[in-house]
Amino acid sequence: MKGVDQEEIARRRGIYFQGFGIYGGLSGLFDFGPYGSRMKDKIVRTWKETMLSEGNIAEFDGTTITHTQVLKASGHYDRFFDFSVECKKCGTKYRADDLVEKRGVKVTLDRDWLQSKITELGIKCEKCNGDLGEVKIQKLMFQVDQEEGSEPLFLRPETAQGMFINFKEYYRFFREKLPFAIITVGRGYRNEISPRRALYRLREFNMMECESFFDPENETWVHDPEDSIAVTFLTNEGKEMKATPKDAYEKGIVKSHPMAYFMGLALRFYSAVGIDIGRIRFRQHRKEELSHYSSETWDAESLTDLGWIEITGIAHRGTFDLTNHIKASGKDLYAQRVIPRKEVIEKKKEIDYQTIKAEFPKQSSKIIAAMKDGASSLSIEGKNIDLRRFLVEKEEKVVVDRENFIPVVIEPAFGLDRIIYTILDHNLSVREDSGYVCLKIPYSISPYDAAILPLMAKDGLDVKANSIFENLLKQKFSVLYDDSGSIGKRYSRYDEVGILYCITVDYDTLKNGDVTIRHRDTRVQIRIKIDEIPDYLGRNPWNGK
Amino acid sequence: MKGVDQEEIARRRGIYFQGFGIYGGLSGLFDFGPYGSRMKDKIVRTWKETMLSEGNIAEFDGTTITHTQVLKASGHYDRFFDFSVECKKCGTKYRADDLVEKRGVKVTLDRDWLQSKITELGIKCEKCNGDLGEVKIQKLMFQVDQEEGSEPLFLRPETAQGMFINFKEYYRFFREKLPFAIITVGRGYRNEISPRRALYRLREFNMMECESFFDPENETWVHDPEDSIAVTFLTNEGKEMKATPKDAYEKGIVKSHPMAYFMGLALRFYSAVGIDIGRIRFRQHRKEELSHYSSETWDAESLTDLGWIEITGIAHRGTFDLTNHIKASGKDLYAQRVIPRKEVIEKKKEIDYQTIKAEFPKQSSKIIAAMKDGASSLSIEGKNIDLRRFLVEKEEKVVVDRENFIPVVIEPAFGLDRIIYTILDHNLSVREDSGYVCLKIPYSISPYDAAILPLMAKDGLDVKANSIFENLLKQKFSVLYDDSGSIGKRYSRYDEVGILYCITVDYDTLKNGDVTIRHRDTRVQIRIKIDEIPDYLGRNPWNGK
Repeated sequence: MKGVDQEEIARRRGIYFQGFGIYGGLSGLFDFGPYGSRMKDKIVRTWKETMLSEGNIAEFDGTTITHTQVLKASGHYDRFFDFSVECKKCGTKYRADDLVEKRGVKVTLDRDWLQSKITELGIKCEKCNGDLGEVKIQKLMFQVDQEEGSEPLFLRPETAQGMFINFKEYYRFFREKLPFAIITVGRGYRNEISPRRALYRLREFNMMECESFFDPENETWVHDPEDSIAVTFLTNEGKEMKATPKDAYEKGIVKSHPMAYFMGLALRFYSAVGIDIGRIRFRQHRKEELSHYSSETWDAESLTDLGWIEITGIAHRGTFDLTNHIKASGKDLYAQRVIPRKEVIEKKKEIDYQTIKAEFPKQSSKIIAAMKDGASSLSIEGKNIDLRRFLVEKEEKVVVDRENFIPVVIEPAFGLDRIIYTILDHNLSVREDSGYVCLKIPYSISPYDAAILPLMAKDGLDVKANSIFENLLKQKFSVLYDDSGSIGKRYSRYDEVGILYCITVDYDTLKNGDVTIRHRDTRVQIRIKIDEIPDYLGRNPWNGK
Repeated sequence: MKGVDQEEIARRRGIYFQGFGIYGGLSGLFDFGPYGSRMKDKIVRTWKETMLSEGNIAEFDGTTITHTQVLKASGHYDRFFDFSVECKKCGTKYRADDLVEKRGVKVTLDRDWLQSKITELGIKCEKCNGDLGEVKIQKLMFQVDQEEGSEPLFLRPETAQGMFINFKEYYRFFREKLPFAIITVGRGYRNEISPRRALYRLREFNMMECESFFDPENETWVHDPEDSIAVTFLTNEGKEMKATPKDAYEKGIVKSHPMAYFMGLALRFYSAVGIDIGRIRFRQHRKEELSHYSSETWDAESLTDLGWIEITGIAHRGTFDLTNHIKASGKDLYAQRVIPRKEVIEKKKEIDYQTIKAEFPKQSSKIIAAMKDGASSLSIEGKNIDLRRFLVEKEEKVVVDRENFIPVVIEPAFGLDRIIYTILDHNLSVREDSGYVCLKIPYSISPYDAAILPLMAKDGLDVKANSIFENLLKQKFSVLYDDSGSIGKRYSRYDEVGILYCITVDYDTLKNGDVTIRHRDTRVQIRIKIDEIPDYLGRNPWNGK
């Protein structure tokens, strides 16, 4: 939000901050503090619940260290890099394409092209105006050292691959019925050349990814796209229109039914975590922006003080990933569909027992055993025998009612850090009268249910407040106790981190057994009895009760 | 459990399995599948809730990539390694100390000692009986490659350090009052020489760690140790006795009050997630086992088919970590305690304005500005002036009522993977009559609330069952739908993964509007009305309602 420095508030109030501060910090690595980690947890739970309540979505929780073969098959090993360029004078590193794009030039991702553009446009270092060096390739995956002689391992650059290579586990779990989807929440790693501001471009980031699988002959989700929330759609032909996901699908703006469905699901989730839907749009990837395997990709973008930023990408990945993993592993990652029963002639190779027995009467059982083990040759009395000549081809009639196919994949991938950035951006506001900052997030993602505040830390008010605090803890409410500073100061302390209720214990509490509950957004104060507090707070779905 | 192959069931039923199976697998890396990931999630939530309901424990969620300086200060950079030895013939790698210990010899962790013991005992390769090579040092931290010329980064070998270096964030959060604690749930990484069976010794593992901070003059937790659950305590003097944590503290078996408290908390947590307390013991580290900085450490061990395994370590870390980070970073990681008011004489250095103005009448303001910026020298008219001589020492009376100290730390660290291993071990049982396997875990950590099973996938039973399924999903229950296989087969399918309720839709359902609910453990079946199902399932605290 304009006029509020999110990063400053986040750091000061322990929402998030750059990691390793006491050692000078490390760029692109951010930690979540006492408030932020609980907000993050609740946002994740909201997302998981939104996804899992579809009924055909299940969870996967895999390692971040990744097998090289996986990344070779996925294309990351060969193709996942950026172009960097360094200032010869001060050593500042830039993404070459960023520098060119800032000049309003449409970028071609090619080293020579970038090199000549930088020269042509006379681009210099932004910090010291020094000359820039050569454009270089920087691999974006972090390699993990292990023992000498072993194949290298990498930290996953996305969470998706674990869900592809374990497709068959989930196909069985869902009783071999499509469509279904798998979700993973976890960390991803990219060795970014120039990690940017706050949570925007990180080297270690948090993702919530979903891989959904379809029969290409029936690319339909199990529920219909959302029809109650309308947002702007920006097509790759430059058209802009307001529509609900259902509209957008029916009018052919969005080609894929599941894609339209996931757009609606995203909107429902954004809404639940307090993102302003008025500042959300769907932007379709231009043809040249599309991954080579994708026929359709839409980004959900949010408008923040950084401009429009991508917070979710919904990509049609076709059969790209499964096809490549089938090729690279030689394993079955197919689904099956029912087809009309038919008889087909199958050619099978069988062992020709008679010829073996005739040619090698003494060693026949040894030969047959070896062939059953799959051997193609055998040494008999010092001579190497080619066993394949004992295979005869036979034809057999088989009834077939199923056929293999490779499912197509649609992937909604949510960038958790940027979603948190957006939530703060959309909900931090400055009170017109006092100038104080207030974080107006939904109760369900508020880091704590309430703060318990004795008016003074004496005269038994602290004792009373503490007994209310302990009581609420026992009933599994998440509450804070705070007796330091003036009551006004404490109210604004909790306004800044989005705590909805402040419960004040004052002298009347001792007399009448009631407390003041102050509401964050309205600042309205009401009196309720102590034993009414749990019911009052009970509206938070995450209070664990 | 004896007679049940946990790893086989876990793999077959998608609880957990070795990662990257289609590429041959990677040792020491395990994934959680559709059932396991949800169990894990609920176990984590139970743990977090147990900890957070203390009222003075807050959460931290930091990066896994770690600054080298942190690991230098913590001692991991220099001291975190194992001794490996490789078979000269087949190349199998062993931990040298494991091989010696298996022979019943008490191990000294010294390369020469291990080398000579292996020779002396004539230890050979366990696989091929080949000769073993030289004992070597293997660093246990995974290094992460980044750009050339940058300082190396590492994957954290434990989650603890992020909580130490951010101590001050939490000290402020808790209004500068001790004791308090910080918790982190997340992944840790160790390049183990020989990752062992299933979830027992992993290269990427899941931890739930807690760092609690105390004034060494008042090492007391805010609540009293548990007095209702008794387990075996095994002291480092070889004494063995049954006691509650409160008993153990009062009798001096456990020296530290918070340590006894966390033991009780651990027992409450184990109990909640279905670990059999009868198979839990606390074993005190022997003197030679203790880290050099620890005065007292207890392991909680569980008895499983692998024998007694450590599932939680509760270590007194003294002031070791904070002291080292203060030294290494030069930053303030102190707490303060109130002391009786006293006046002290403080020596302060002040700028001697008069001398400056007298000596450098024209440049005095420039000099003063430089000194205020902290400069110690300045070049004036080509001459380098030592500014320190313009500082004069003054004495000042100051009233002091607080003093700095370094808090002591007690760390309960829970190994999540081994806890899951223990839960499965303690709860997998074989039915005496049928020989089928049943996982009798508590409802609260069961992966799904219920499975909805139409007796047949026809005659409208599937339609009815599906409408019940969709209805429960809308009410945020986690349910499965399954119409494949005989009803008995489906019951045992869900028994194996710990689903407590199977809800069967049969022909009577269509007539009477009721369903059969079958209970996993008792196999008792009752009939209830369809609209009573939500209330019946509502007892699961995690169903999100």
